[in-house]
Amino acid sequence: MKKGRKMYCGGYTGKIMRINLRESTAREEALPPDVARDYIGGAGFGIKYLFDELKVGTDPLGPENKLIFALGPFTGTTIPCASRMAVTAKSPLTNAVGVALTGGHFPVELKRAGYDVLIVEGKAPKPTYVSIKDGKVHFRDARSVWGTKTTDCQQIIKNELKDQNTRISCIGPAGENLSKMACIINEMRTAGRKGLGAVMGSKNLKAIAVRGAGSVTVASKEKLKIARGHMIKAMKESPVLYPEFSKTGTPSNVDNTCALGIFPAKNWSATGEFTPVEQIGVEALETRNVGREFCSGCPVGCSQLNLARTEPYAGALSEGPEFETLYAFGGQTGVDNMDAIIAADRLSDELGLDTISSGVAIGFAMELFEKGILGLADTGGLELTFGNHEAMLALLRLMAFREGIGDLLTDGVKIAAEKIGKGADKYALHVKGLELPGYDVRGAKAHGLSYATAFTGADHNRGYAFQEIFGIPVPNAVDRFAVEGKGKLTKWNQDVRTATADCATMCVFILDMAVSHFATQNTAALMEAVTGFSYTAAEIEEVGERINNLARAFNVREGFTRKDDTLPERVLTEPLKSGASKGHFISKDDLKKMLDEYYTVRDWNLNTGVPSREKLVELGLAYVADELGC
Amino acid sequence: MKKGRKMYCGGYTGKIMRINLRESTAREEALPPDVARDYIGGAGFGIKYLFDELKVGTDPLGPENKLIFALGPFTGTTIPCASRMAVTAKSPLTNAVGVALTGGHFPVELKRAGYDVLIVEGKAPKPTYVSIKDGKVHFRDARSVWGTKTTDCQQIIKNELKDQNTRISCIGPAGENLSKMACIINEMRTAGRKGLGAVMGSKNLKAIAVRGAGSVTVASKEKLKIARGHMIKAMKESPVLYPEFSKTGTPSNVDNTCALGIFPAKNWSATGEFTPVEQIGVEALETRNVGREFCSGCPVGCSQLNLARTEPYAGALSEGPEFETLYAFGGQTGVDNMDAIIAADRLSDELGLDTISSGVAIGFAMELFEKGILGLADTGGLELTFGNHEAMLALLRLMAFREGIGDLLTDGVKIAAEKIGKGADKYALHVKGLELPGYDVRGAKAHGLSYATAFTGADHNRGYAFQEIFGIPVPNAVDRFAVEGKGKLTKWNQDVRTATADCATMCVFILDMAVSHFATQNTAALMEAVTGFSYTAAEIEEVGERINNLARAFNVREGFTRKDDTLPERVLTEPLKSGASKGHFISKDDLKKMLDEYYTVRDWNLNTGVPSREKLVELGLAYVADELGC
Repeated sequence: MKKGRKMYCGGYTGKIMRINLRESTAREEALPPDVARDYIGGAGFGIKYLFDELKVGTDPLGPENKLIFALGPFTGTTIPCASRMAVTAKSPLTNAVGVALTGGHFPVELKRAGYDVLIVEGKAPKPTYVSIKDGKVHFRDARSVWGTKTTDCQQIIKNELKDQNTRISCIGPAGENLSKMACIINEMRTAGRKGLGAVMGSKNLKAIAVRGAGSVTVASKEKLKIARGHMIKAMKESPVLYPEFSKTGTPSNVDNTCALGIFPAKNWSATGEFTPVEQIGVEALETRNVGREFCSGCPVGCSQLNLARTEPYAGALSEGPEFETLYAFGGQTGVDNMDAIIAADRLSDELGLDTISSGVAIGFAMELFEKGILGLADTGGLELTFGNHEAMLALLRLMAFREGIGDLLTDGVKIAAEKIGKGADKYALHVKGLELPGYDVRGAKAHGLSYATAFTGADHNRGYAFQEIFGIPVPNAVDRFAVEGKGKLTKWNQDVRTATADCATMCVFILDMAVSHFATQNTAALMEAVTGFSYTAAEIEEVGERINNLARAFNVREGFTRKDDTLPERVLTEPLKSGASKGHFISKDDLKKMLDEYYTVRDWNLNTGVPSREKLVELGLAYVADELGC
Repeated sequence: MKKGRKMYCGGYTGKIMRINLRESTAREEALPPDVARDYIGGAGFGIKYLFDELKVGTDPLGPENKLIFALGPFTGTTIPCASRMAVTAKSPLTNAVGVALTGGHFPVELKRAGYDVLIVEGKAPKPTYVSIKDGKVHFRDARSVWGTKTTDCQQIIKNELKDQNTRISCIGPAGENLSKMACIINEMRTAGRKGLGAVMGSKNLKAIAVRGAGSVTVASKEKLKIARGHMIKAMKESPVLYPEFSKTGTPSNVDNTCALGIFPAKNWSATGEFTPVEQIGVEALETRNVGREFCSGCPVGCSQLNLARTEPYAGALSEGPEFETLYAFGGQTGVDNMDAIIAADRLSDELGLDTISSGVAIGFAMELFEKGILGLADTGGLELTFGNHEAMLALLRLMAFREGIGDLLTDGVKIAAEKIGKGADKYALHVKGLELPGYDVRGAKAHGLSYATAFTGADHNRGYAFQEIFGIPVPNAVDRFAVEGKGKLTKWNQDVRTATADCATMCVFILDMAVSHFATQNTAALMEAVTGFSYTAAEIEEVGERINNLARAFNVREGFTRKDDTLPERVLTEPLKSGASKGHFISKDDLKKMLDEYYTVRDWNLNTGVPSREKLVELGLAYVADELGC
């Protein structure tokens, strides 16, 4: 061990750093072992501290909101694909729990710097960034980076700190301007959705820079060798991970979802009809691919570097576009110019805008423009017709800087529709205020139920129904158009994913594509090896259930009820007109049936959606039941 | 000394690395002590090897041209402001000697990696980058960076090499597309002008990455302490270096040259009349300044980081704009939108376009458009009126990618004017093909003579007449409008600057602002301390004279004669109409008188401009006289 090198035990550093921006103080706290045991890490920690410490009705953009960065016990160990971090706060977009995961290199570096969890509180009196080096926290004037794009911000901070190996998590202009679609960027990775970048901006916090020389030890090297071996074997045996997914990444899902008739198009008005596979599918990226990036400790490297080739976008490079961005800036907006999508992807990353929410908002505005609900006077002269990629790029800037119509759209389609009136809400595609991701759930009903019920709103990362999208028969094969059984499946998908991906923390792609058939066993074995706590597979799933209930409880406390577990009008009333899912939709009755089944298996009240006291007590959440008065 | 750390002696590593791109081979050669003694380093080495090794008539963009990166003996020592490097090749823009200097961190890192000089030969069979680490050279496939902008290129290479401390010198799309205005970029610094980026592109060489742990020792620490002490004292005593220049950098020269009536405007048609001091002078940058950058070992940090604040440019950051860029994208184009200039500056750096040449080309096209020589059909619909900043940004892209009218302009105004015909050459502001920098020499005649005679064409960095621009009375006070004495002054300016700045190597700003009154003594003392060679001040000046004669000989051999030592028609025939230099111009007779004086003091033939045999022999260049047959 090198001099000055610190070793941490059991996958945890055992430390929480509470950063008070108002006072410029940082206070270390011990990570309680029972929290580590029952919540594992990542989103588990984030939601636990958010529930316990936030007052009801806290303004998400006020100084009382907390922004929690939390690693899992796998981060920084030799377990592959585990450089992941959950960022949690009350979301300004939904007023519900906001959780976003990111990968890259920042998470491992934060662990090396000495912390499992950062709880950021208060609002700095002036633009600030925080530098954490080997356990020491410094508050620095952000004058030199306030207003900058995210790549420049990271480079300037590296130069200022005279350490090019520093890793930085930051916001762009969108976060500073409190766009409710602002995300948090590290390297070119994104903790996206739910406006957590605006929470950071509201705190006058431009960036967190981390650097450390610590390393992580595990409870049992022997057990880890065995458990890790099983995982790596499963990865090698995966029919899709190598070389396919490794070589193409998520964009191949454009081809897949177009074939299934569920690649949403033109604000979900032309799904199955507008299927630009040749233009923006995986083959179109082959000629633009220049390489790929690997998150720390990942042997797969799914993140593709693509370069725009034609004017006026030539030379624009993005780490992406991922599938969701191809949906948001392609299908949703009717844009089939791949180079424009690459440029828009990069621009969003630079401005710190979430691509899904901003793409959905642009498609929404385009439909309103085409329907005459918005006119040229509203758009500042922009011809917002579907497919107008130059207008799309212009809107992204307007949204990040809150200029013109961007000021309206950047608060999300729900609020924008309320302000516009004239029936605009019919075209606002969101659940609980969060814009819909890239699967037209009219042809994937468990996916739809998950959008309706996820505690973060319409979020593909909470309970992704890979059974419907990829035909993976785990825990069993399903009919994507069926209604029955989807409540139970959705609970399983949500609980398992929460525990194995969001808490542990581990890359969802690896979980879905290689270890889905033993995801909880895999996590149980790795957890025991790393932390020394013993778990059964069922107990891992129970951690997921605990956290889904706790998050639900947070939302209930904020006033959410069963009526919020719904889907946009279009999904519930307009059958798909073309493609392989033609004629299908989720009728209001379908949704009722699925919700009833879901609430029943969750043991949540069928009318209110409130968890039962029995369930909460069973999950060790009696104090939560007391708080809710149930 | 750390293990593996190499120590180099006398300011030199003593090594030349000859890189053959066709064969992917690298061969070390010893740096001959007599070359080190007589040519010092930097541009001295570059021009020496270029003259000795290039055949007459070599195609600048053919594989036989050589691209030479050369450090000076001060680089990497404790001498401040000496992280400088000269890049030399036959210029595709002028067909004459092309030399460009750059600063930043790359030069010091190259020295630490083990080399004084890199001579790059041949053309790689496919896009390649070269990585040099502690003396070892690797040839790497540039597939991942070909087509990328310069910032992305540098980051991708750092990631590929898994070393964030690597320093990289690279080209952007402009260099790949063989724009004759392409430059070479390291960090956000530029080896600009003369199209050296195109030479790099013609060799399929995207980048050179360097990293090293070597350090430099000096001949006499005691002597260095004394000599360095004198220099630092002079810097501290400078009336302008701290805090003024340190705080504002070169942009304050906008205010100065406007006051002198020599800030060139609208393709030099409105100098003295269009003086946008408030809009693009130093005060306009105060509100946009976010910090500054320091070259390695520089205590001044003149390089200002500025951030555009208004749409559609908000968030654009540049390390600059320097004075010359404010001229090129401001005065010359009639643009008084500072945010547009910042955005154009950054875009040029990203595309790898020289700001001066591209700005002059844009102003040239604007005047042709306003005069009806170019129409909308020629410009692809762009309204090229003076002041149209959006058109300016669009043209930069077109020039870098050789699209539309950009394909014409990107070869420089001389060639473009020839192709356009219709009297366009009257508006083409260049000397020997190199576009005019930002001093309207009609009000600064030594400056004009230097543009006319510099071996690189109209180059403000060869013999800058700081006496005229800043009123510094070294070696004596001068009247900027006078003709007499300017030949002698220009020789002195050229020789002293070549030796002290371009060979030693050292930052010109420090030389001009702090040590101009003892520049050659300063360099002589530092040289003796560092290298152990003893020099008098006169001998330092003589090195400059040697190199100016050698470069002249190169150009003579390529066919240049006295007729090429001239100025654009506008400068020779149109008196300034407004401002503090109103009524002044350099008449043809003025130029003849100044040239006669200059040739006489240089001992060059008055008719042909060829150096005399006696002069060449006196300078130790008998072999050059033989080669020229004089």
